[in-house]
Amino acid sequence: MNTAPISLALHGGAGTINRDQMSPEKEANYRATLQLALQTGYALLEKGASALDAVEATVKVLEDSPLFNAGKGAVFTNTGTHEMDASIMDGSNLEAGAVAGVSGIKNPISLSRMVMEKSEHVLLMGEGALEFAKTQNIAQENADYFYDELRFNQLQEAKKNNVTQLDHSPLNEKKYGTVGAVALDVQGNIAAATSTGGMTNKKFGRVGDSPIIGAGNYANNATCAVSCTGSGEFFIRGVVAYDVSCLMEYKGLSLEDACNEVVHNRLLKINGDGGLVAVDAQGNVSLPFNTSGMYRAAKTSEGIDFVEIYK
Amino acid sequence: MNTAPISLALHGGAGTINRDQMSPEKEANYRATLQLALQTGYALLEKGASALDAVEATVKVLEDSPLFNAGKGAVFTNTGTHEMDASIMDGSNLEAGAVAGVSGIKNPISLSRMVMEKSEHVLLMGEGALEFAKTQNIAQENADYFYDELRFNQLQEAKKNNVTQLDHSPLNEKKYGTVGAVALDVQGNIAAATSTGGMTNKKFGRVGDSPIIGAGNYANNATCAVSCTGSGEFFIRGVVAYDVSCLMEYKGLSLEDACNEVVHNRLLKINGDGGLVAVDAQGNVSLPFNTSGMYRAAKTSEGIDFVEIYK
Repeated sequence: MNTAPISLALHGGAGTINRDQMSPEKEANYRATLQLALQTGYALLEKGASALDAVEATVKVLEDSPLFNAGKGAVFTNTGTHEMDASIMDGSNLEAGAVAGVSGIKNPISLSRMVMEKSEHVLLMGEGALEFAKTQNIAQENADYFYDELRFNQLQEAKKNNVTQLDHSPLNEKKYGTVGAVALDVQGNIAAATSTGGMTNKKFGRVGDSPIIGAGNYANNATCAVSCTGSGEFFIRGVVAYDVSCLMEYKGLSLEDACNEVVHNRLLKINGDGGLVAVDAQGNVSLPFNTSGMYRAAKTSEGIDFVEIYK
Repeated sequence: MNTAPISLALHGGAGTINRDQMSPEKEANYRATLQLALQTGYALLEKGASALDAVEATVKVLEDSPLFNAGKGAVFTNTGTHEMDASIMDGSNLEAGAVAGVSGIKNPISLSRMVMEKSEHVLLMGEGALEFAKTQNIAQENADYFYDELRFNQLQEAKKNNVTQLDHSPLNEKKYGTVGAVALDVQGNIAAATSTGGMTNKKFGRVGDSPIIGAGNYANNATCAVSCTGSGEFFIRGVVAYDVSCLMEYKGLSLEDACNEVVHNRLLKINGDGGLVAVDAQGNVSLPFNTSGMYRAAKTSEGIDFVEIYK
């Protein structure tokens, strides 16, 4: 048998994730949801679905869980709303779609895909993006759907301490709850998808790297598909996702060497912390991070199959 | 005498700009404003000012002119408002600031700089960015200031034809009126600034490449400073500004070779049209475009000094 390789890798955020702060029940919940997302996307790839379909379906599972900072689990802004960002890119033709600062959309990753496929644009923001959403048949949800007691308490805590939290975790931790997935399909095409709720207590319409093509998300069959999670401002300044691609294309590095160079060297030089997941068209996967943990999982036709949280 | 080199290059948009559609008076107006912007920035560099100050001052002159699609000359959105985007980046430390979809701000480039220097963030959008602006001492202007009869007629024409114009010119032309500047200062630091009013008749909160670090704007002392103008969606998908930098850093290309490769090869492959201006830390400048014209100017301590419009 000589079938083409398939691969899927995903993340549910990187940060300070320590064993001693995690109960067995909580850890089991995280692992089960990561496994469900992995299996959902991988099953599609096995049936011959496109990488684009696989990454969207994988991210939707993570968006629909309250455990991760995206979709249903999105953190609260300073004014008690949810402003979500997402992006998707098709490595076969370099087409891309993204939304920034959208509220009330059940699956921002699916809205990103509609921007890519049903508009002439790449990035739509705020109320305008919601006007576009109304022209499409996309699921909307009210504030009750997005309400989560843990997240609400995190907002009160952040307001009390007058900080904008870079994460969705207690103040003594740093955790970036962005979610994302990358995949290689049986046709040899790769794709990347990223979705986030941004920062707890965020003000001023802050946008991080997640909806920025080249920063938090990138895909190109010739090199790699990448989805990032971390301190968004540093990922924008480092143009992190495209940096991995350029190190492969222009310097001839392997996927793993390019990912490690970006996460463990170039990103650290500008004090950026976080991680990323990446695949290439040969089916290799890489999931580096420079924090103490990253919710992550990968499965490939070459026998890789894991769900991990800690370093 | 052995002084360090200084350089400034700027653009006022690329596109279909033909001699036969330009009256002598109109051309003289464009040339005079480009010359004023060039001289304003270069005079600062001669006095020892930073590249950051020079590019901001240069772009402000272009924003304050009704001739270019930024600031006072910004085009109308579908709803008759102005939504402007801008970004700035400091090559000495890779710090950056940007705003997307802001209204009523006289100089969006200066607001971008405040985001960089006075906030923890890189990119602020829409109403939130305006809330941030209110916390800063920045000039605001009402709708009258931004009203321009030519632009208003362009909106009516675009609405009548039900098109979103990628430019601020008659329908039979394509012109991208974004403005931008790059500079090298006597300290050896480089910087880039870009500002735009986006697309006539734009809807849905569309954001182009101008406020996206890596796409429409980038600066790194180790390589180059770049400001782009063109079909924004393609510049985002091509991560154009950072692509020039990567070709220099990872492949060893000169500034000119890297710029030409991106504008005349890679961008064309994805059907992107437009151009860019770039400088490196040695004082070289490059101003390539793949359209019939680009409003542009450059001046360096090595004797380059021109204002040009056509190919």
